[in-house]
Amino acid sequence: MVPMSKRLFAETFGTFWLVFGGCGSAVLAAAFPDVGIGLLGVSLAFGLTLLTMAYSIGHISGCHLNPAVTIGLWAGGRFPVRDIAPYIVAQLVGAVIAAALLLYIASGEPDFVLMGNGLAVNGYGANSPGGYVLSSAFAIEVVLTFGFLSVILGSTDSRAPAGFAPIAIGLSLTLIHLISIPVTNTSVNPARSTGPALLVGGIALHQLWLFWIAPIAGAVIAGGVYRWLAEEPKAPAVVGENL
Amino acid sequence: MVPMSKRLFAETFGTFWLVFGGCGSAVLAAAFPDVGIGLLGVSLAFGLTLLTMAYSIGHISGCHLNPAVTIGLWAGGRFPVRDIAPYIVAQLVGAVIAAALLLYIASGEPDFVLMGNGLAVNGYGANSPGGYVLSSAFAIEVVLTFGFLSVILGSTDSRAPAGFAPIAIGLSLTLIHLISIPVTNTSVNPARSTGPALLVGGIALHQLWLFWIAPIAGAVIAGGVYRWLAEEPKAPAVVGENL
Amino acid sequence: MVPMSKRLFAETFGTFWLVFGGCGSAVLAAAFPDVGIGLLGVSLAFGLTLLTMAYSIGHISGCHLNPAVTIGLWAGGRFPVRDIAPYIVAQLVGAVIAAALLLYIASGEPDFVLMGNGLAVNGYGANSPGGYVLSSAFAIEVVLTFGFLSVILGSTDSRAPAGFAPIAIGLSLTLIHLISIPVTNTSVNPARSTGPALLVGGIALHQLWLFWIAPIAGAVIAGGVYRWLAEEPKAPAVVGENL
Amino acid sequence: MVPMSKRLFAETFGTFWLVFGGCGSAVLAAAFPDVGIGLLGVSLAFGLTLLTMAYSIGHISGCHLNPAVTIGLWAGGRFPVRDIAPYIVAQLVGAVIAAALLLYIASGEPDFVLMGNGLAVNGYGANSPGGYVLSSAFAIEVVLTFGFLSVILGSTDSRAPAGFAPIAIGLSLTLIHLISIPVTNTSVNPARSTGPALLVGGIALHQLWLFWIAPIAGAVIAGGVYRWLAEEPKAPAVVGENL
Repeated sequence: MVPMSKRLFAETFGTFWLVFGGCGSAVLAAAFPDVGIGLLGVSLAFGLTLLTMAYSIGHISGCHLNPAVTIGLWAGGRFPVRDIAPYIVAQLVGAVIAAALLLYIASGEPDFVLMGNGLAVNGYGANSPGGYVLSSAFAIEVVLTFGFLSVILGSTDSRAPAGFAPIAIGLSLTLIHLISIPVTNTSVNPARSTGPALLVGGIALHQLWLFWIAPIAGAVIAGGVYRWLAEEPKAPAVVGENL
Repeated sequence: MVPMSKRLFAETFGTFWLVFGGCGSAVLAAAFPDVGIGLLGVSLAFGLTLLTMAYSIGHISGCHLNPAVTIGLWAGGRFPVRDIAPYIVAQLVGAVIAAALLLYIASGEPDFVLMGNGLAVNGYGANSPGGYVLSSAFAIEVVLTFGFLSVILGSTDSRAPAGFAPIAIGLSLTLIHLISIPVTNTSVNPARSTGPALLVGGIALHQLWLFWIAPIAGAVIAGGVYRWLAEEPKAPAVVGENL
Repeated sequence: MVPMSKRLFAETFGTFWLVFGGCGSAVLAAAFPDVGIGLLGVSLAFGLTLLTMAYSIGHISGCHLNPAVTIGLWAGGRFPVRDIAPYIVAQLVGAVIAAALLLYIASGEPDFVLMGNGLAVNGYGANSPGGYVLSSAFAIEVVLTFGFLSVILGSTDSRAPAGFAPIAIGLSLTLIHLISIPVTNTSVNPARSTGPALLVGGIALHQLWLFWIAPIAGAVIAGGVYRWLAEEPKAPAVVGENL
Repeated sequence: MVPMSKRLFAETFGTFWLVFGGCGSAVLAAAFPDVGIGLLGVSLAFGLTLLTMAYSIGHISGCHLNPAVTIGLWAGGRFPVRDIAPYIVAQLVGAVIAAALLLYIASGEPDFVLMGNGLAVNGYGANSPGGYVLSSAFAIEVVLTFGFLSVILGSTDSRAPAGFAPIAIGLSLTLIHLISIPVTNTSVNPARSTGPALLVGGIALHQLWLFWIAPIAGAVIAGGVYRWLAEEPKAPAVVGENL
């Protein structure tokens, strides 16, 4: 068993990588004149942060990088309740560091101004990229996190082919962003929402509750469905169980 | 053997994921101002719905998510005839739920108006994105579904490398969309066509016949070719045979 | 051993898929107004035709789909000389059928006019998308085919991880297109060049010689380098040796 | 053990492929009118050069293609100190040949003019694509190379699933480019920076120091962290250890 200190370090670093890479691509490169990467590039970046980390630290911490994933894995009978709180704290620390470093780097561009959406914060209503109302935002975050956890729980089940789960999981996060950036800027991850919101403050902080409640609700439902569907959860017995 | 109730649930959820993800990316994100994901993003989204589900529920239901796939696998000697009808019903249920939920979420954008193409319906002639005539639409749906089933049957044959089929199959759906969205908005899947058409009605419903006949024709031909090419179908003996 | 008739059928169908998918995405979708897939989408499409076929027919014919690949594998000591001619004929048949079907489908768009570049033909000088001169075109086709065959020979060597070669090979074709579409519209494949050129005629046919000589030159050099680098070619002993 | 001459040849060719493919896509295709591949296409190209080479020459040289990778692997206890210098020389030779060939090919476009950024050189301040200051450039190169080496060291650890590391490593390079092209044009690789800078000269050469120091600093820190995290480095015992 990998010591908890190293598992938590891995979660902090991995969540840093997810938030710095995903939000960083959005802030620095999405709307670059003429050749910007657009929402497609941002979607790919978010997915690749997870894919690359899953192969790199999956055998250390399981590579959750997301409180909804940690809670969903517990709901699916695959993660011990006593480890939930430390994992979430580690993830939040990584997300905040990432947002702060991103702000530092982005500020090195002479015309940079930190506005409401300046760190790729999540939001609804006036803070939704496409102006979608709260009910649309809530529904899509629940549904997409439900699908996300279904992919995670299914592809890491011992009956799925071994070694491929990081590809399925990472690319499912890309898919989720391809659908929903215009609605909420895409969360499905309370830590990813919290990091930038803490630095930007204002509306982003007021709306943060939704990006905790909706993803966790979707994740818990997915865990329950998985328990029924899989009859008995069959996770690999080794460390890195959920990869 | 996984009980039929769970296999059907998997097919319903998986087809929901395919239609909600694929059509959702088209409706919500394809033409987002300046940074929209375009047809390339939509193509990627469709493929990733299938890739992610194949790794997640492949060992439960085989992850068809498509009546043409179910019938093509039967034509290739790899799926029992008695399971065809329940599979197709389960797929249609998932597709309709997806289209309805997508309509609910899209309606949360103040300027949203449901027009003919408002849920990414398939079509030809006046309803083809690029104005392609019926004969072009029919030909490309037959040919691309033939290729799709050839990839499915070949990559899940026991002589192909194990575990990689979801990558080949998912990315073949991306490829198919890269080619043919301008012609028919790309079906190769009668369930994917039926869900949105039922909600939109009108021309989409009138043209729906083509998106049942052409894909199924292509799939049946592919099944026959596979039987000749493979001499004796060699599917893995375990559940999840076609993955 | 798979009978030659089935191996040749696989090569014909696979080359059809490569030319129809790659050139089809270019003709039908690349420049679609506002949301077209661009050269990035075309590059992805070409690579995915090869990736998907390699998993599907690799165990039948080796999935060359390209005279330069067939000759390069022979130069690398991995393919018997007596099978070269039938393989190339089969590939050419598939490429011509693909170009003809693409022309039929594209003609179903009311405004379609077959111009010089109307079927994504390869060219240099006046027929180069970016106006590149002959020497640039020749150099890049030699170098990129050299790299292409190096990837094929290296990733299918028995010392490389098993099962992953189709990913490496398919995505190397995507990479090659990302670099060189502006120069020659990217060939690295005499069959892919011949199919559209035969239907379009004119300059495309006059310039066709380069897209036979340069790719084959690059492939033969790669075969020789591989023989030196690998000391003794170590191909898997089973059918589908080069996958 | 593969003889050093062949390992060095592999490093030279692989680094050639990385620089020619990555910088070539940027120079030739990124800003092609209307259908250019943009920064997203360039990011994909850089990643795919590494992914394809890792499967092709990984079993020969380990496929570093980057002085920072070579030094980071040494810092992580996975590469002998005596091989560092020859590896770096081989990589530099490949990078210079690539830049020269790219210049030759690009010059075949009648309107081509070699300007400051004409070969995709790296830079900061006036030479940063988005005008980012030195401190932003330094910070992002350290952080991203740290992440890059963490992915390399983690995914090639013997506890990670075998065969998948080239996917994780190649796509991490794509991710890194998606984030940082606007800041520094993305280096994380002193050889990739040196090749074009030597041919372009001027500011690019003056700023080259940063693209040696920052990547190597990030790589060395990652090596140290890996030694702590992994307790005892567990590399596969066979040749191609870090793949």
